[in-house]
Amino acid sequence: MYNVAILGATGMVGQEMLKTLYQRNFPFKSLKLLASARTGGSIIEFNGQKMTVEIASHESFKDIHIVLSSAGEAVSRELAPQAVKAGAVVIDNTNAFRMDDDVPLVVPEVNAAAIKKHKGIIANPNCSTAQLVVVLKPLHDYIPIKRVVVSTYQSVSGAGKDAVDELLNQAKAFLEGNEVTSKYLPKQIAFNLFPHIDVFMPNDYTKEEIKMTNETKKIMGADIPLTATAVRVPVIIGHSEAVTIEFEKPFSPQKAKEILSKAEGVKVFDNPVGIEYPTPIMAVGRDETFVGRIREDISHPCGLNLWIVSDNLRKGAALNAVQIAEKLIEFKMLQD
Amino acid sequence: MYNVAILGATGMVGQEMLKTLYQRNFPFKSLKLLASARTGGSIIEFNGQKMTVEIASHESFKDIHIVLSSAGEAVSRELAPQAVKAGAVVIDNTNAFRMDDDVPLVVPEVNAAAIKKHKGIIANPNCSTAQLVVVLKPLHDYIPIKRVVVSTYQSVSGAGKDAVDELLNQAKAFLEGNEVTSKYLPKQIAFNLFPHIDVFMPNDYTKEEIKMTNETKKIMGADIPLTATAVRVPVIIGHSEAVTIEFEKPFSPQKAKEILSKAEGVKVFDNPVGIEYPTPIMAVGRDETFVGRIREDISHPCGLNLWIVSDNLRKGAALNAVQIAEKLIEFKMLQD
Repeated sequence: MYNVAILGATGMVGQEMLKTLYQRNFPFKSLKLLASARTGGSIIEFNGQKMTVEIASHESFKDIHIVLSSAGEAVSRELAPQAVKAGAVVIDNTNAFRMDDDVPLVVPEVNAAAIKKHKGIIANPNCSTAQLVVVLKPLHDYIPIKRVVVSTYQSVSGAGKDAVDELLNQAKAFLEGNEVTSKYLPKQIAFNLFPHIDVFMPNDYTKEEIKMTNETKKIMGADIPLTATAVRVPVIIGHSEAVTIEFEKPFSPQKAKEILSKAEGVKVFDNPVGIEYPTPIMAVGRDETFVGRIREDISHPCGLNLWIVSDNLRKGAALNAVQIAEKLIEFKMLQD
Repeated sequence: MYNVAILGATGMVGQEMLKTLYQRNFPFKSLKLLASARTGGSIIEFNGQKMTVEIASHESFKDIHIVLSSAGEAVSRELAPQAVKAGAVVIDNTNAFRMDDDVPLVVPEVNAAAIKKHKGIIANPNCSTAQLVVVLKPLHDYIPIKRVVVSTYQSVSGAGKDAVDELLNQAKAFLEGNEVTSKYLPKQIAFNLFPHIDVFMPNDYTKEEIKMTNETKKIMGADIPLTATAVRVPVIIGHSEAVTIEFEKPFSPQKAKEILSKAEGVKVFDNPVGIEYPTPIMAVGRDETFVGRIREDISHPCGLNLWIVSDNLRKGAALNAVQIAEKLIEFKMLQD
């Protein structure tokens, strides 16, 4: 049994981590909830229990075996090394360490073995990448992928609780004929959308888009060219992706469906005649990454098109982190 | 001066046609508003004037020079030939005749000359195609396009007034904690989205997606391979498109910006540093097709990525139809 700490416990991902640990009966002996000074000290109610959230500091990690961290890049940079020094393994959901050579970046269905090389920190990928690679990997194992083009439809929960409130408040204001104002997101999001997630980089990609390119390569262990357009849409939870893949050889949609229906963590939901395809709302609270609209790419002889949807707070964040922790136990890499 | 009829005058596109004729000072002598039996007979108020909508029949087109038609495919199939027989030129916004060899499919900025070959009917393309080709054409003229991958973010007004009401009612119900029901759209659209516009075809593409492939080829007069994923999003007006283009040779983003800033009907809005890129809300009521996020495709040496947004009721429908009518006059192809 393990002492577990959630760093960033009051955020949307932190809350989902808490829920996931309970839902999966994670073998924890104790659970410590940590947050920054802004929300630390507050009381969280969960499963009828009141739990106090402590303010995270260098001293917070004594006797902790596992830290699930999602309190932002700056907090991770400061506290993760301290937690490691105190003897914990940190599973970090921020962008702080993902591309560090010393830090495995892991989606258990794809590269669980990378966990074995960790030096205290294991990184959880960006939400859009996690749901993409669980689908790409089994296809790539069958016929190598040559190139990927992705357009995302990313929900507002990816930007945090304040952004979700902003969406709901804007929608209400709009419906009541009142002025719509934006504070947490760069533009109006209610009844609107924009191709802008995270900051812009020198090559005019956003950091979100570049993360998808780099993290996919690192997790897949293959130099697969990938270009992305990341778009924020007025959906609360659930990221969707329109994905066009070029393979080394032709890949029939039928074969892709067959492979994906056996793939771990993936659920094929693809029956156009029955009006069945994944949508964000149906993915909420679900662990699976849903894939539908599997069809030939009529613009390329070796292409396939897919539509991938997942709960960005689950597979895109909390679930993946807890799965990594489970693998640490399975690999006997934690002393309890 | 011309006698003009709007067929489908009570619909969203019909209303926009009316507005556009006035805004552009179209030289009409008389304006006849026509609709099917369901809404025919109603009174429309426009510019402080009350206008009666007549029920369209075979007899409606006597002395009419131009019919702008947007009352659905079935109505066009029945009445357009009658209007032509009565001596009118029909500019048809439905899917009824677009791929007929005898019918020019026209976006004036791209292939105005095709109008000269009309035999009574000229087709207006699908909304998603119109805004795409005005951007593709000037680029293709500079370096030929080899392949296009498009993901759309299409607003609910593309599905008509009832669908827009459904979005607003669902949003209200959701915010008030009430049950959300769908009647006009296949799934919940408020705070959700789905990759399903028009019906599914045998190859598992939707008809909307196939229209983009076929219409783009016909308008561009070039056999350009194109694959599309068409997605309905909870936006009221304004279609967005994430577009990845492969050219025969490398195409610098800088050169593309330069070419597009001079292109007719196109407005480059692309300044990431200033957080400037097109969004649906900014495009509402505007004639231009906006393009931003112009950047290299880091997955392909000859690729470019673009983000294209336009008012689907304007360039995607009413404006394009009125522009065709204006060209008919310019080409002296109407007798007044």
